[in-house]
Amino acid sequence: MDFAFDVISADQHDQLVALYEPLARAVRGLIDASIHTGVDEQTIRDAQSAIESVTQTLESTRHDGYRTLRVAESGRPVAWANAVIGVRNPIAPPLTIHHNADATRCWSEFSLGAPYEGPPGRVHGGVCALVLDHLLGEVASEGLTKPRFTGTISVKYLRATPLGELRAEAGIERVEGVKTFVRGFIADAEGITAEAEGVFIEPAWARDAG
Amino acid sequence: MDFAFDVISADQHDQLVALYEPLARAVRGLIDASIHTGVDEQTIRDAQSAIESVTQTLESTRHDGYRTLRVAESGRPVAWANAVIGVRNPIAPPLTIHHNADATRCWSEFSLGAPYEGPPGRVHGGVCALVLDHLLGEVASEGLTKPRFTGTISVKYLRATPLGELRAEAGIERVEGVKTFVRGFIADAEGITAEAEGVFIEPAWARDAG
Repeated sequence: MDFAFDVISADQHDQLVALYEPLARAVRGLIDASIHTGVDEQTIRDAQSAIESVTQTLESTRHDGYRTLRVAESGRPVAWANAVIGVRNPIAPPLTIHHNADATRCWSEFSLGAPYEGPPGRVHGGVCALVLDHLLGEVASEGLTKPRFTGTISVKYLRATPLGELRAEAGIERVEGVKTFVRGFIADAEGITAEAEGVFIEPAWARDAG
Repeated sequence: MDFAFDVISADQHDQLVALYEPLARAVRGLIDASIHTGVDEQTIRDAQSAIESVTQTLESTRHDGYRTLRVAESGRPVAWANAVIGVRNPIAPPLTIHHNADATRCWSEFSLGAPYEGPPGRVHGGVCALVLDHLLGEVASEGLTKPRFTGTISVKYLRATPLGELRAEAGIERVEGVKTFVRGFIADAEGITAEAEGVFIEPAWARDAG
């Protein structure tokens, strides 16, 4: 697996976010509208053509270069395409993850709308698992600055998670050799809806390097 | 939770798919292009405006009506917005799920591209959990025709799952009262990358009704 990356300054990072984030936000709006729209068939076909035309323009120059960057000041990777936090990825909500000073705990406040639905009006159970896997991985890897891969994750669903405003948290329980044990949860305003525990493992190549 | 639904014929279902599926497919193409594009700033801003304009048109008439339909012939729900199988949901790959005749096993062959990325070139571990949660739920609920909710799910990651062509399967292990025990896996061409087991529970209101 190629974990090569380029380092950019915080200023360069901010410029790239300013360039790409509004585009991803516009596509997120379109995703939502395309689920709910009730316009007639001709209007749908026109919309489809307009979208295909924009896609063709965007595809005219591909930028496969800096998929993995790190910000010099923080050492944080810039995960543009990440399915949970990717600023450039319209399928990511995206979550903004906060870490405490000693990197033993992280949390995020976020909103999940129609695209994340499972049962009517409820978050897909697998989307809860996706968010929890990400939060647990963030805290296990000290904010994605250390290589730690999910070994196992277990999610316990206490009740259905409603679409809307949510909070997720994760914390390190203990470290035993190459294994980091973490726990986390998702909650709505009424309390916890799903809990998770996971074991994350430092890969052999990182141990050798350390 | 409102599980009311309208019943439509298979023909009506096919007409709705023909109407909406190409729109969702166009948005999926745009999602991918927006992650990879390397066009200049002015072209990005123009694309953004064009997208916002299409969104505005689609938002002009909302169709909140038939979110939950069932097809008369099969009894299958039509989960338009579902995050994994939703035909109208551009963030869904979407997966097409096949069930065997006695509804004890289901499987899907699908492809996951850049929007589902975690580590470079690899599927986000949480996306594997999302797919597995869905497959396990499908088989536990006999193709979403019976109410069964995830109690717990555990995912064990054997190795990183590459982006590209994948297969997932799930099967019922045993049923004990209100609990259905299921197992499943995701595999690439080389074999299994992640395994899952889960316990699904029949809700009290369905027991009373049964």
